[in-house]
Amino acid sequence: MSYEAIVKVRLGDIDHAGVVFYPRIAGYFHVATEEFFAERAGLPYHELLDVRRLGLPTVRLEVDYREPLRFGDILRVEVAFAAVGNTSVTARYRVRRRPDGPVCAEGRVVMVCVTMDGFRPVRLPDDLRAVFGRHPAD
Amino acid sequence: MSYEAIVKVRLGDIDHAGVVFYPRIAGYFHVATEEFFAERAGLPYHELLDVRRLGLPTVRLEVDYREPLRFGDILRVEVAFAAVGNTSVTARYRVRRRPDGPVCAEGRVVMVCVTMDGFRPVRLPDDLRAVFGRHPAD
Amino acid sequence: MSYEAIVKVRLGDIDHAGVVFYPRIAGYFHVATEEFFAERAGLPYHELLDVRRLGLPTVRLEVDYREPLRFGDILRVEVAFAAVGNTSVTARYRVRRRPDGPVCAEGRVVMVCVTMDGFRPVRLPDDLRAVFGRHPAD
Amino acid sequence: MSYEAIVKVRLGDIDHAGVVFYPRIAGYFHVATEEFFAERAGLPYHELLDVRRLGLPTVRLEVDYREPLRFGDILRVEVAFAAVGNTSVTARYRVRRRPDGPVCAEGRVVMVCVTMDGFRPVRLPDDLRAVFGRHPAD
Repeated sequence: MSYEAIVKVRLGDIDHAGVVFYPRIAGYFHVATEEFFAERAGLPYHELLDVRRLGLPTVRLEVDYREPLRFGDILRVEVAFAAVGNTSVTARYRVRRRPDGPVCAEGRVVMVCVTMDGFRPVRLPDDLRAVFGRHPAD
Repeated sequence: MSYEAIVKVRLGDIDHAGVVFYPRIAGYFHVATEEFFAERAGLPYHELLDVRRLGLPTVRLEVDYREPLRFGDILRVEVAFAAVGNTSVTARYRVRRRPDGPVCAEGRVVMVCVTMDGFRPVRLPDDLRAVFGRHPAD
Repeated sequence: MSYEAIVKVRLGDIDHAGVVFYPRIAGYFHVATEEFFAERAGLPYHELLDVRRLGLPTVRLEVDYREPLRFGDILRVEVAFAAVGNTSVTARYRVRRRPDGPVCAEGRVVMVCVTMDGFRPVRLPDDLRAVFGRHPAD
Repeated sequence: MSYEAIVKVRLGDIDHAGVVFYPRIAGYFHVATEEFFAERAGLPYHELLDVRRLGLPTVRLEVDYREPLRFGDILRVEVAFAAVGNTSVTARYRVRRRPDGPVCAEGRVVMVCVTMDGFRPVRLPDDLRAVFGRHPAD
């Protein structure tokens, strides 16, 4: 089971070539992650940082861009999780314009759980491991 | 005497209408402010925040957009200061493509000096008052 | 009657001072405008640009920042219109955290209707004049 | 031989975790690419798009983040090229704080040469092939 967030392509997301500036699609991934935390993990992302004092910085990012995204597109950004390790987890993303349409972009983000004070790696909390486990990437 | 920073319009600064997305010009103003702090105030902006623990949040912004800015433009962003008060200062900006060319955009930013811990207004430090005073807006 | 869009403050909207980077609040205004076009004008903003070949570039922006906005804030961005002239219109925005809470930021954007080919000012189309007129700023 | 651009981390590049928001590092890669085109290819990037009517959209992006980047960092972004094919090329990037310091981030961007009208793949022009060939990734 994966989670899907709706992200609308905005006027300012477009670059001079008339398509979404490619780094911003990684920003869409993060929007989906933030929505996932609020909707499925019961832990708004800002509480993870500000209350639990834990962060999930990205250590590796991969994106495959299959079709240009354009202003006016209403995107479905699917997120699911794989490789839940001791301190790290991999989020996988797929971006589509329609529920069963072709994948326009897909990506993979490896995150490491760290303390906000000092950015030292720590074990992923059990509630996050559980919610990631309930949304496995295929 | 004003200070001038060079800012290049980048591919990703452009919006779907083919011109710089209008909020980003206020971002160019901040780049000029950061360069001013490093080059003229002898105080890199991050040291103001991280070492002196003072911030200069914007309380009012005004921008007049006179000509669209486009990808490839190499801009001269002039900054000068007015209305140096007890806790606040007004930065004035003019954006041109050529040294004596027409002003493509101009703006005014009112900033208030605050403590980073708690965002309480405090008196502008004397060294900043002095350097602002040496770069008066006309 | 005004229109209200929900805008969530995202991780990447925050600056080194821990608050929303001030130009991005003008970006939130544009999100509200895009939502207004889709929901109330029956004309998605990208159709205005791509099908009708008209644009609404900003010629003047004013923002008053009254309270810092922070990661995790779910904002209500109200938009209403004033001064509907021959070729221009003024959008007014108010940003709140709660429906009847204090205004955290407010702004004014003067836009001019132009042809996308050549950016020449033209009369605002009647359907837009009508929908702006039904959402007057107080 | 590689090419190196200087990129300064700006106040607004930082996210709520206090480090550069990870997608923006891919934006730094593009700044280095734009500087490379202007300085080494004799072809400003906007001329590639607007005069030659060719684009280089990204079809794959990989980034490894080794150390958090922070406000005030003055980065050296090295770019070099590999795998110059018929229609595609791979740019490789390394980001350092000091000339011989550790690599804080590195990445790989696969771009495909397309016509701006229709985004159809076309053979990379010979002058670009030549300049990419003079800046080979090791």
